[in-house]
Amino acid sequence: MNKELIKKLSDIEPYVPGEQPKGAGIVKLNTNENPYPPCPGVIRALKEIKGEELKVYPDFVCRELKKIICENYPVNENEIFLGNGSDEVLALCFKAFFNSEKPVLFPDITYSFYSVWTEFFKISCKTVPLNEDFTLNKGGFLSDNGGIVIPNPNAPTAIYEPKESIEEIISKNPESVVIIDEAYVDFSEEGSIAELIHKYENLVVVQTYSKSRALAGIRFGYALTNPKLIEVLEGVKNSFNSYTINTVTRILAAEGGKDKAYFDKCVGRIKKTRKYLTDELSKLGFITCPSSANFIFTTNPNIDCRRLFEYLKTKNVYVRHFDKPEIDNYLRITVGTEEEINILINEIKGYLE
Amino acid sequence: MNKELIKKLSDIEPYVPGEQPKGAGIVKLNTNENPYPPCPGVIRALKEIKGEELKVYPDFVCRELKKIICENYPVNENEIFLGNGSDEVLALCFKAFFNSEKPVLFPDITYSFYSVWTEFFKISCKTVPLNEDFTLNKGGFLSDNGGIVIPNPNAPTAIYEPKESIEEIISKNPESVVIIDEAYVDFSEEGSIAELIHKYENLVVVQTYSKSRALAGIRFGYALTNPKLIEVLEGVKNSFNSYTINTVTRILAAEGGKDKAYFDKCVGRIKKTRKYLTDELSKLGFITCPSSANFIFTTNPNIDCRRLFEYLKTKNVYVRHFDKPEIDNYLRITVGTEEEINILINEIKGYLE
Repeated sequence: MNKELIKKLSDIEPYVPGEQPKGAGIVKLNTNENPYPPCPGVIRALKEIKGEELKVYPDFVCRELKKIICENYPVNENEIFLGNGSDEVLALCFKAFFNSEKPVLFPDITYSFYSVWTEFFKISCKTVPLNEDFTLNKGGFLSDNGGIVIPNPNAPTAIYEPKESIEEIISKNPESVVIIDEAYVDFSEEGSIAELIHKYENLVVVQTYSKSRALAGIRFGYALTNPKLIEVLEGVKNSFNSYTINTVTRILAAEGGKDKAYFDKCVGRIKKTRKYLTDELSKLGFITCPSSANFIFTTNPNIDCRRLFEYLKTKNVYVRHFDKPEIDNYLRITVGTEEEINILINEIKGYLE
Repeated sequence: MNKELIKKLSDIEPYVPGEQPKGAGIVKLNTNENPYPPCPGVIRALKEIKGEELKVYPDFVCRELKKIICENYPVNENEIFLGNGSDEVLALCFKAFFNSEKPVLFPDITYSFYSVWTEFFKISCKTVPLNEDFTLNKGGFLSDNGGIVIPNPNAPTAIYEPKESIEEIISKNPESVVIIDEAYVDFSEEGSIAELIHKYENLVVVQTYSKSRALAGIRFGYALTNPKLIEVLEGVKNSFNSYTINTVTRILAAEGGKDKAYFDKCVGRIKKTRKYLTDELSKLGFITCPSSANFIFTTNPNIDCRRLFEYLKTKNVYVRHFDKPEIDNYLRITVGTEEEINILINEIKGYLE
């Protein structure tokens, strides 16, 4: 290939998502999906969509969908920004809010896409080491910065930081936008801090339908913040892709936000299975971080967890391992159905024997 | 709002898409959608989607969908990059291929999103004036540059540039990636230059399902190029959003690429109506650029076309007007159904009387 041409090509280091193995008998506990299907209304709505609706560009106002979000969280329609999965929402937030020479701060052990987005948009960044027990080092987020992004619960640790700590970080950084990524918050006991967007003009809360709402396949996420920051986000989105939410996603996401009874039942089952998984692993010598998510982060000081990870793959059981010094003897395991967790536990027992 | 906070916010000037008026009796000829619904197989496929498929992240390999594209164009599966509408594909192409201090070139009268993306990604750019008859000024694309993007047919002029001219621009710029945006190519007589990706390593062809395939609502577009450039594009995409194509779009796009008889019938009807519209306007004193798209670009030297545009809106007929010196007495009109075009013509007659 022409050498001058090659010089013009991007050499960015991409994010690497978890493997997506296909086939019968595979137990997939590596990408934190919901083991239960979305609420039945979603499928009913799907069957009612007409061809006429698909030939035109999507409605980008999405009032019905925003109304449903307002029923689930204490926010108003003009405080919601919608996107093609929360990854897109976060990426556009980085572009919209992190325009400073000062570094953007995030934990050193966290969702690995954050550092990729800073590179993508050429944003300066600095990581703040977690405490030894993997909790957040609050003090590290009080230095001069160009913005802050923190997931709560954090990933891959699954640890939920108390609301007071998060609020302190927000209140002590009035000159920076603070993004709280609540991808897993519905699995916590303490819940979302969405209501704080009315108290702090610098707060952006990001959520997703890929986990608790069981709709990873439709790609839907959103940001909650004040109307001024929403306007900035809309401007950035309209400088990238005017129609990020397609018609089908808009309709199904509205349905997916209803049916509170079904939602509570599925989240309840996952929490119950999470406790079962943690207890069973404990009997096998594993130490697990206290989880507020639909996955757990666990280690066993007596074994090489990377080898266990590789072994499980040969048994068609997929969990996630991160090749990072401080956490390379940990596994991140999605809380699947009880049946899937029993298969996992049996395979781990087989390995340990 | 805190002054330091404001300094960190993006102040980008966004692209402004055409209005999306809603309501009965509206004749919408302003965003170049297809007046006919997608092929019947799309709706059949929609009804067969299961909830279980939606709870997991989308399959990003999309083999079935890529196979269908290979049946419609002379390309191979490893020469296809998929995106959430061709706008997203183009945006990611800009990021992937335009990494030079030298300016990226595009026509001065063209799709207005190009200049927005250069600002979004901080890419230097320079516009090349069209000839007086709105055809491409080939010579303007032979100077030293950081990349080239040309729509063929061009928008909003609807003019198709002969393959030989386009090929000359590609062959004389071996040190730059040349993107040919073929959003409207299926409405031309001469067709796509997709096969040239096997001849030129610097060529990227971009297409969409929003126009000829009548699926603007599902957001689907793609780039065709050699495997090396595909790899760069995939890296860039995975630095922004790993899952841009959702499960429903993947399934419906595969269906939407089948049914050649239906496709040919709809495209044929649009071409016929395009001729009818052009002829009728000609009788009313309008001069129309030769159109190879599903829209026409027309002017009437005897009247103020902007006022006609505003008048038509009051009659619930939406066409597009661009507030740009050289073209501010032109209207861009989507080729709707014959019925819609008759309503338009009658309203124009009413205005002229």
